[in-house]
Amino acid sequence: MIREGNEETDPEFIARLASYLGFDEKRVKRLFEKNYLARNWGKYEHLLRFDKEISHIERGTVLYEKDSSFEIIMGFPKIRRAMVLNPTLKRHFSGLEKVAVEEKMNGYNVRIAIVEEQILAITRSGYICPYTTQKAKEKLDLRFFDDFPELVLYGEMVGPDNPYVSKEIYGIESVAFYIFDIREKNTGKPLPISRRHEILKKYDFSQVRSFNEIPLETAAEEIGKIVRELGEKEHEGVIIKDPEMVLSPLKYTSSQSNCSDLRHAFKFYNETGRDFMLSRIVREGFQTVEWNENEIEFENRCMQLGESILDSLRKSIRSVKDGQRLYEEARIRVRDLKTAADFEEYLKRLGVDTIFEEPQSVGEEYLIIIKKINKSTNDKTQAIWQGEPW
Amino acid sequence: MIREGNEETDPEFIARLASYLGFDEKRVKRLFEKNYLARNWGKYEHLLRFDKEISHIERGTVLYEKDSSFEIIMGFPKIRRAMVLNPTLKRHFSGLEKVAVEEKMNGYNVRIAIVEEQILAITRSGYICPYTTQKAKEKLDLRFFDDFPELVLYGEMVGPDNPYVSKEIYGIESVAFYIFDIREKNTGKPLPISRRHEILKKYDFSQVRSFNEIPLETAAEEIGKIVRELGEKEHEGVIIKDPEMVLSPLKYTSSQSNCSDLRHAFKFYNETGRDFMLSRIVREGFQTVEWNENEIEFENRCMQLGESILDSLRKSIRSVKDGQRLYEEARIRVRDLKTAADFEEYLKRLGVDTIFEEPQSVGEEYLIIIKKINKSTNDKTQAIWQGEPW
Repeated sequence: MIREGNEETDPEFIARLASYLGFDEKRVKRLFEKNYLARNWGKYEHLLRFDKEISHIERGTVLYEKDSSFEIIMGFPKIRRAMVLNPTLKRHFSGLEKVAVEEKMNGYNVRIAIVEEQILAITRSGYICPYTTQKAKEKLDLRFFDDFPELVLYGEMVGPDNPYVSKEIYGIESVAFYIFDIREKNTGKPLPISRRHEILKKYDFSQVRSFNEIPLETAAEEIGKIVRELGEKEHEGVIIKDPEMVLSPLKYTSSQSNCSDLRHAFKFYNETGRDFMLSRIVREGFQTVEWNENEIEFENRCMQLGESILDSLRKSIRSVKDGQRLYEEARIRVRDLKTAADFEEYLKRLGVDTIFEEPQSVGEEYLIIIKKINKSTNDKTQAIWQGEPW
Repeated sequence: MIREGNEETDPEFIARLASYLGFDEKRVKRLFEKNYLARNWGKYEHLLRFDKEISHIERGTVLYEKDSSFEIIMGFPKIRRAMVLNPTLKRHFSGLEKVAVEEKMNGYNVRIAIVEEQILAITRSGYICPYTTQKAKEKLDLRFFDDFPELVLYGEMVGPDNPYVSKEIYGIESVAFYIFDIREKNTGKPLPISRRHEILKKYDFSQVRSFNEIPLETAAEEIGKIVRELGEKEHEGVIIKDPEMVLSPLKYTSSQSNCSDLRHAFKFYNETGRDFMLSRIVREGFQTVEWNENEIEFENRCMQLGESILDSLRKSIRSVKDGQRLYEEARIRVRDLKTAADFEEYLKRLGVDTIFEEPQSVGEEYLIIIKKINKSTNDKTQAIWQGEPW
C-alpha cells in the first residue's frame, strides 16, 4: 500500500479542512502525518481518502474541494454479521414489522459517482480504479449521474472479468454492476429500498436479487431456508435490511461461502490473516448448532470443512514441491489496451506483485490474464521442502 | 501474569548482576523496568526469572545469588519442528551417522534442581510451582541431587493428576516425571544421551521411551513409521536428537496430536491463539503430501480434521446455549491440604481464574477437582446467543 510521507503543508488548506470536518487543525495535521488521511495520485491527487475510520467517518471515505467548500463520498458502512439468526434479527430489528432480504453477492465493492463531471469508480479503500471506472462507463446508463449528481451508487462488480474476485456462478459473461444501495453525497444517507428500486428500474441498472419483505416474526426461519438454497448454488448469502434504511443492515452467509473463503485462504496459508480463517470456521460451529443438524448433516459439514482446508493446502504444498510458483489468476477484458496499462500501473502503485500476460483478442476486446504472485506462502513452502524447520 | 512494577533500586546489586551477565548496568535496569527480568514472590523472591529471551538466555531461565556471585538454571531450549522429515533431518543433522529418537510426551515441562539445599520444580516460565515441587519430592530419588548438585533434570510431568495437561494415555495412576534431558547449571550444557541413560538408571528415574539410534540415511522413513504407530495410540510424536547432544534436537508430531490440539483449541475458540490453531492445520497439509497419501487416506484425514474442529465448537456452543458455563477441568492429588492451598494461591497470583472444589479422600491422599473458567469464549458465545452480532 502507499505509505509515503504525505504531510500537507498549506496552512490555509488545513484550516479550511479542519473547519469543515469540525476537527482542530492539529488533529488534521496529524491525520496527514500518519497517512490516515491520504491523497490519491496522478490526475486524482486532489481526491483525499480516509485510510482509517476517524470519528465515524468510514475508512475509504473520499473528500475533495468543491465550490470553495468540500464534498464527501462516504465509505461503505461496515455491515455486522448475525452469527445466529434467532434471536439476533428480532433484537436488531425490534420495532419493525418486516425486514427486506437481498442477496449478498460475491464480488468487489465499488462506489460509482460523478466527481467534477467525471464518472469515477471508487474502491472500498477510496482508490480510483481505472479498470472499474472504465467498465462502469461502458456498462451503466450514465444519464443517471446527470439527473442525480448528488447520489452515489453503492454496488458490487461481479463476473469472471473482475480481477479482484472472479466468479462464474452468476452466469455473467464478462462483468456487471449490481447496485445494492444508493446514498447521498456528504451525508451518506441511503434511499429507502422502494425508492432505490424505482430509480434503478428507470435506468435499467442491475439490482441484487430481492427476496421481498419478510415478517420479522418468521424471518429467522425463512432466511435459514433462503440461505440453504443459495448455498446449494454456491452463492454467498443475504443482507437483511430495514425497508426504510433507518436501522443498519445485518448479513448472514451460507456454509458453502464460508468453505469457499477457507479454500482460498488456505491456498495462500501464509498470507491470509489468521482472524479471517478462524472467523469462517467458527461460523460453521454456530450454524450447525442453530440449525440443529443431525449426525449425518453434521458429518457432511465436518467433511466439507476438512476438505476445504486440506485440499487447498495439499494443492499448494504439492505445487511448490513440483517446482511451480504459487499465484492467483485474475482476468480483465478491455476495449482499449490503455485501460490495461493504467490498471497495471495502478496495481504496481498499490504494491501488488503481478504479471500481466500478453493480451488475447476476443471479438472487439482484449482478454488479459493477470498472475498475482503470493510470495510469502511460496517462499515459506519452498523453504520447508528444502529442509528448513518451521 | 505478574505485571507489577519491579524496578530494582539497589545499585550495588545491579552492578554485580550486570558484570556477571556481561551487560551494561543501564540495560539490566531496563530489563527490570520492563519486567523482562522479574522476581518470583514470597519465599522465592530472591529467584529472578527471565520473562523474555534476552541475548541467547532462554525465556524462563532462573538466576540467583550464590557464593557472592550468581548461579543460573537455563530455560528449556526451543525445539524447532521438522515440517517434513525429508530432507529436513538430513540437512539439520548432516555429518552424523545416526540420530537418536525419543518419544515426545504430552505433559508439562518442568526443571527440577537443588537450589540453596531445597529441591524446586521450576516451570517453563521460571516460576516455582508448589504442587509440582511437592510431587517431585515424593516421586524422585532425591539422592541424585546430593550426588550431582550441579545438574538439573529437564522432564515432563505426565498423568491424570497433572493440573496443566492431564492425560490418561500413558497408563499412569497419578503423576510421574519422565526425564528427557540432564543439563549442567550455568552453562545449560546437556549430557550425552548415553551418560543420561546411565545416571537415570542408577536412580531409577523414568525415562521417555527411546527408539534407539537410527541411521540418518533411513531416518525419515523409519521415523514416519514410528510416528504413525504412536499416533494410533494417541501419543504425541518424537524428538530427534544428536546422540552427543551437540546439534540441537528437532521435533515431529502425529496427526492425532495435531487434531487433539485443535480439539482443545476450538473448545475455547476465543481464547486460543490464532497462530496456534493455524500451525496445527498447516502441519496436516505437509504430512499428507510428504506421506503421499491416497484418496481414502486423504478423506480420512479431512474428516479427522473437520471433526476435531467442529465437534469441539459444537459442544461449546451448545453448552452455552443450554445455560452452562465453559470451563476446563483439572485435578490434583495431595497428601497434605497445605499443598493444595499453596497451589491455589499460586494460580491466583498468576492470574488464572479457578474454582477449587471440595477435597475428596482417596486412600491417604486427597483428590481435588479444579475448574478453570474460560471467560472470553464463554462471554462471547453467550452474547451471540443473546442476539449480539459478531
